[in-house]
Amino acid sequence: MINKHSPLPIYYQLEQGIKEMIEKGQLKPGEMIPSEREWAETYDISRMTVRQAINNLVNDGYLVRKRGKGTFVAATKIEQPLKGLTSFSEDMRARGMEPGTNVLEFRTIPASPTLAQQLDIREGAEIYEIRRIRLADQFPMALETLYMPCALVPGLTREIVSGSIYEFIETKLGLVIRSAVQIIEASVARKLEADLLQVKEGAPVLSIQRNSYLENGQSLEVVKSIYRGDRYKFTVEMERKKSK
Amino acid sequence: MINKHSPLPIYYQLEQGIKEMIEKGQLKPGEMIPSEREWAETYDISRMTVRQAINNLVNDGYLVRKRGKGTFVAATKIEQPLKGLTSFSEDMRARGMEPGTNVLEFRTIPASPTLAQQLDIREGAEIYEIRRIRLADQFPMALETLYMPCALVPGLTREIVSGSIYEFIETKLGLVIRSAVQIIEASVARKLEADLLQVKEGAPVLSIQRNSYLENGQSLEVVKSIYRGDRYKFTVEMERKKSK
Repeated sequence: MINKHSPLPIYYQLEQGIKEMIEKGQLKPGEMIPSEREWAETYDISRMTVRQAINNLVNDGYLVRKRGKGTFVAATKIEQPLKGLTSFSEDMRARGMEPGTNVLEFRTIPASPTLAQQLDIREGAEIYEIRRIRLADQFPMALETLYMPCALVPGLTREIVSGSIYEFIETKLGLVIRSAVQIIEASVARKLEADLLQVKEGAPVLSIQRNSYLENGQSLEVVKSIYRGDRYKFTVEMERKKSK
Repeated sequence: MINKHSPLPIYYQLEQGIKEMIEKGQLKPGEMIPSEREWAETYDISRMTVRQAINNLVNDGYLVRKRGKGTFVAATKIEQPLKGLTSFSEDMRARGMEPGTNVLEFRTIPASPTLAQQLDIREGAEIYEIRRIRLADQFPMALETLYMPCALVPGLTREIVSGSIYEFIETKLGLVIRSAVQIIEASVARKLEADLLQVKEGAPVLSIQRNSYLENGQSLEVVKSIYRGDRYKFTVEMERKKSK
């Protein structure tokens, strides 16, 4: 696992090696990993080096420290295919997890110029602003801020948005949601986001903006979400086009 | 832009507001933004609050501080569609940028059990290990570590991998690259990665693993890349499946 003649720093090699053991299942979720002293002795490296590797893996969510107990392999990340357009509630149920929602804000506001443009409505038109924490088995997964034209989705209430909005739109309003464009960016959790998602300030997060459209092409929503980087990974399949 | 009665912290509102001004083009790439004092006076808020908002935007790569000059709007992020499977060189040329490569490592190693499984070859079979910095107009964009079976891609040299490997595979070897699966995760730059990518340690990065396949289904490569979060965003289009 460690090659002292490699140009790569030792902590980095150890880190990649432990990551590989987790990915291969040699170290399993919930399992306690060897102590710093044991790693240091096994590979004849300093405990400082071991600590650096383990700190990095804790920050990235591969390992979890439990005070007075030791360091453990974290729960596996949720793998979210970027394929079918699905709702958070549908995703969690498909994984056998119970979706949950804490509504932080539910109100109507006049559309700002940017939101008006993105939602293809006139500036100042009434839109919902909905801010929610999405939970899986009661653990916070994502912080979501959602904008929708009130005229398009009449009758939305705080109670409805504490469940699946897509379900309401499709079954109660009979609208057909067709497609979405998502923008995926890397970011780090701000103090506020960190507190709400129960991670440390500066922890890696995925920042995702989704613009969804109805069957007739109308803009349905703009959703800005912050997903916990230690709990989420996204997958996508791609085809190579014929070269010219 | 600032609502003092909102439950959201002022710094967060200011941050989102400035971000919106950048996205709308009211503040343009390269443009100097108002000073901390000016923001503080305009919105009647403390300079500490302004500083926090601006620090966050600098960390996220929206703004850039130039010592003794001021704070400027950063170059726009490269928007990379997760659609067609393209090479880095092709992507950059399509944007009118000059692709470049610094080869950090080029060697052959025996496949570890994990890589053997992912590449669908026997354990210990010879594979290339190639580590490269990918550049656009000479600026570092991504750090890439690539594994490929030697038997499948004979004749690869250090010189070839300082250009487009896909081009060599397709035009010289006549192999047909068909598809890939990508896993996208949020992470933060390690010391080593930060130095190579010329960002600060702890800066947000996108960690992407790509497994590519040939027309006949054979595994071609496993590529692990670290993309600068301040220079890259990924987009994907999704369709809603008919609800059951």
